[in-house]
Amino acid sequence: MSFRVPLRAKTVVLSGGVGGARFTWGLARFLPPEDLTVIVNVGDDFRHFGLYISPDLDTVCYTLADMEHPERGWGLAEETWHALEMVARLGGPTWFRLGDRDLGLHLERTRRLAQGQPLSRVVQDFCRALGVKPRVLPVTDDPLRTVVLTREHGPLPFQEYFVKHGTQPSVTGFHFQGAAAARPAPGVLDALHQADMVLLAPSNPWVSLNPILAVPGLREALRSATVVGVSPILGGKTVKGPAAKMYREMGIEPSALAVAHHYRDLLSGFVVDNQDAALAPLIEAELGIPVLITDTWMQPKPRREQVARSVWEFAYTLHFHMRKEPHPREGKVP
Amino acid sequence: MSFRVPLRAKTVVLSGGVGGARFTWGLARFLPPEDLTVIVNVGDDFRHFGLYISPDLDTVCYTLADMEHPERGWGLAEETWHALEMVARLGGPTWFRLGDRDLGLHLERTRRLAQGQPLSRVVQDFCRALGVKPRVLPVTDDPLRTVVLTREHGPLPFQEYFVKHGTQPSVTGFHFQGAAAARPAPGVLDALHQADMVLLAPSNPWVSLNPILAVPGLREALRSATVVGVSPILGGKTVKGPAAKMYREMGIEPSALAVAHHYRDLLSGFVVDNQDAALAPLIEAELGIPVLITDTWMQPKPRREQVARSVWEFAYTLHFHMRKEPHPREGKVP
Repeated sequence: MSFRVPLRAKTVVLSGGVGGARFTWGLARFLPPEDLTVIVNVGDDFRHFGLYISPDLDTVCYTLADMEHPERGWGLAEETWHALEMVARLGGPTWFRLGDRDLGLHLERTRRLAQGQPLSRVVQDFCRALGVKPRVLPVTDDPLRTVVLTREHGPLPFQEYFVKHGTQPSVTGFHFQGAAAARPAPGVLDALHQADMVLLAPSNPWVSLNPILAVPGLREALRSATVVGVSPILGGKTVKGPAAKMYREMGIEPSALAVAHHYRDLLSGFVVDNQDAALAPLIEAELGIPVLITDTWMQPKPRREQVARSVWEFAYTLHFHMRKEPHPREGKVP
Repeated sequence: MSFRVPLRAKTVVLSGGVGGARFTWGLARFLPPEDLTVIVNVGDDFRHFGLYISPDLDTVCYTLADMEHPERGWGLAEETWHALEMVARLGGPTWFRLGDRDLGLHLERTRRLAQGQPLSRVVQDFCRALGVKPRVLPVTDDPLRTVVLTREHGPLPFQEYFVKHGTQPSVTGFHFQGAAAARPAPGVLDALHQADMVLLAPSNPWVSLNPILAVPGLREALRSATVVGVSPILGGKTVKGPAAKMYREMGIEPSALAVAHHYRDLLSGFVVDNQDAALAPLIEAELGIPVLITDTWMQPKPRREQVARSVWEFAYTLHFHMRKEPHPREGKVP
C-alpha cells in the first residue's frame, strides 16, 4: 500500500520510551501536529535526589525535539556530566546517569510540581519550550509506579530493576502501584474518544503499555477506534530492553505472536517485521485480524518515518476502507 | 609583632561567606589543622528547586579546598552552567546561579539530609572528600533562617533580599527564624570551650555573625576564650556585600568603630585596617580593649595568609602574654 496524497486521521499513539519515541517521531514527520497525540507511560517515574524524574516522557519529548542521544535511548545528544562527577567525588549514588542539561529539566519540573502544577501541564509547557508540536500527554497525573516482582530481590521499583540491577533479576510478575486510583490525565480520554486510530507503539508490553492500559477507563476508551499494534519483538528478540527476557521469565515464548496475544482484546490489526512473516498467518488465524508484514527496523533515523508511515497507512486502510464487514473485535460496530 | 617559631593555640573562627572563608584559608596556611575550627553561619541556607543550599558553608569549604572562584565570592572556579541554561529555556527561575558541579554537591547534600543525616555530618564527609583539613562546623543542624526586614517588601528570606533583589531594599531590621530553638551542632560548644582564641572573621556583623551569635549558648561559650574581631568595614566601606549599607539603613554610621561597638560585649581585642588608624584610639578608649592596626586587605590570594597571621599573632599575644592584668570584659577572669 502506498498513499502519497495527504490523508487525515486523528491518531493517538500509546508509548513507552525509546521505541515508542522513535515511532512517534516518524509519525510526526508526515502527520499534521493537530492530528497526533502521544499518551506516555509514567510507571517508570521516580524520585532521585528528591527530583521528579520521568524517563519515558523525557525520551519522547527529547526525541520529538530532535535533542535525543542517537544511540543510548535516553538523555540528550549534547550533554555534560559535571554534576554527577561531583556527586561521585562526594561518594553519592551514580547508578542513574543524570546529565547536566537533563538535570536542568528535572529541577524545573520538580519545582513546578512542588507548586501544585499537574504533570500534564508541565509536560505541555516543556514541549512548547522545546519546540515539540504533537501533543504529549502523560497517561495520568496521579502516582502510578511500576513494581517489578523478582525472584532474587522480591518487589523492585522499576528503575532499581531496570538501571540499578541492569534488568538482571528474574521477573515473576508486575504490580502497577496506584493504578486503581489513577485518573486519566486531562485530555487523555478526549483524545482517545476523538481518535480514528490508536497505534500501540513497539514498546515493552509488560512495563511500557500495560501500565498505561492499567489506568481505569483507558481500555474502554480504545473501543471506538481502530487499534493497531506493532510488535517490539523481531525474530524472538527485542531491539532494546528486556521485553523478550520478561516473556521467557513469565513462561511465554517471546515472539510477535505472543505480543499479538498480549493485546488481543484490543487489536483491529497487527504489524510484524519481515523476519516474522511466518507468524502472520498464525496471528491472522488465532486472533482473526489482518496482519501487516513490513520492515519495522527503525535505524538509521530516516527508517523511523518509513516504519511509521507503513503502520499508519495500514491502520488508515483498516479504518476507512475495510470497515464494510463486521469487525471481529467484540462490541465494535463498524 | 612577629613570631616565626611555630606557636600553638586552639583557634576557632566564626565565619560567614567570602570574607570569613578567605580569612580562614589564610589561617589554614600556617595553623596545624587540628588547631583550627571554623563555625559557619547557616542563616543564609534555603531550599531552591527542592535542593538544600548552604551558601556560606559551601563558600568556606570550596575556599579551603582551593576550588573557589577567585573573584565572584561564591561557587567554583571551574564551572559550567548547562543545567541552568536548560532551566532558562524552560522558563524557570535563574536568579540564583547554580553551576553544574555546585549542583552536584547540592544534590548529594539534599539526598543525605533526606535520609536523616544531620548537616554537620554531611559537611564533615564533604570536607574529607574535598581534602579540607581544618574542622568546618555549621553553627547548628537545626533550621535557622535569616529574614531581612525591608521597607519596600516587608520581611524577605535572606536569599531573596541578597540575590533576587540584589540587596537593594532598605533594611529596617533582622529576624533569625528558629534561632531560639536552635541547638549548637555537635562539636560547636566543645570547640569553643577548648578554644584559646576565637576570631570573629571580617564577615557581615548583621547577617553573617549575628545569626551565629543568636544560637542559645554561643555567646556564653565565648567567655572563656580570648575573642578578637576583625573589621569588615575599611574606610567606611565593605570589601564585598551590604554590611556598610545595612549600618546606614539601621541609622549607624558605618565604620570600624561601629563594628567594634557591635561586638563590644565579646571582644578582648579588635583589628582595624591601616586606613582606619585614626579610629583605633577611639575604640581603645570607648571599649577599653587593645586595637591592632594593620593591612587587612585580602587580595591577591597570598595577602590572606598575611592578614590571618597578623590577626592570629595579635590574639596570641593577648591570650598568652597580656593576661596578667584583669581583662576589661565583664565576667572574664584572666
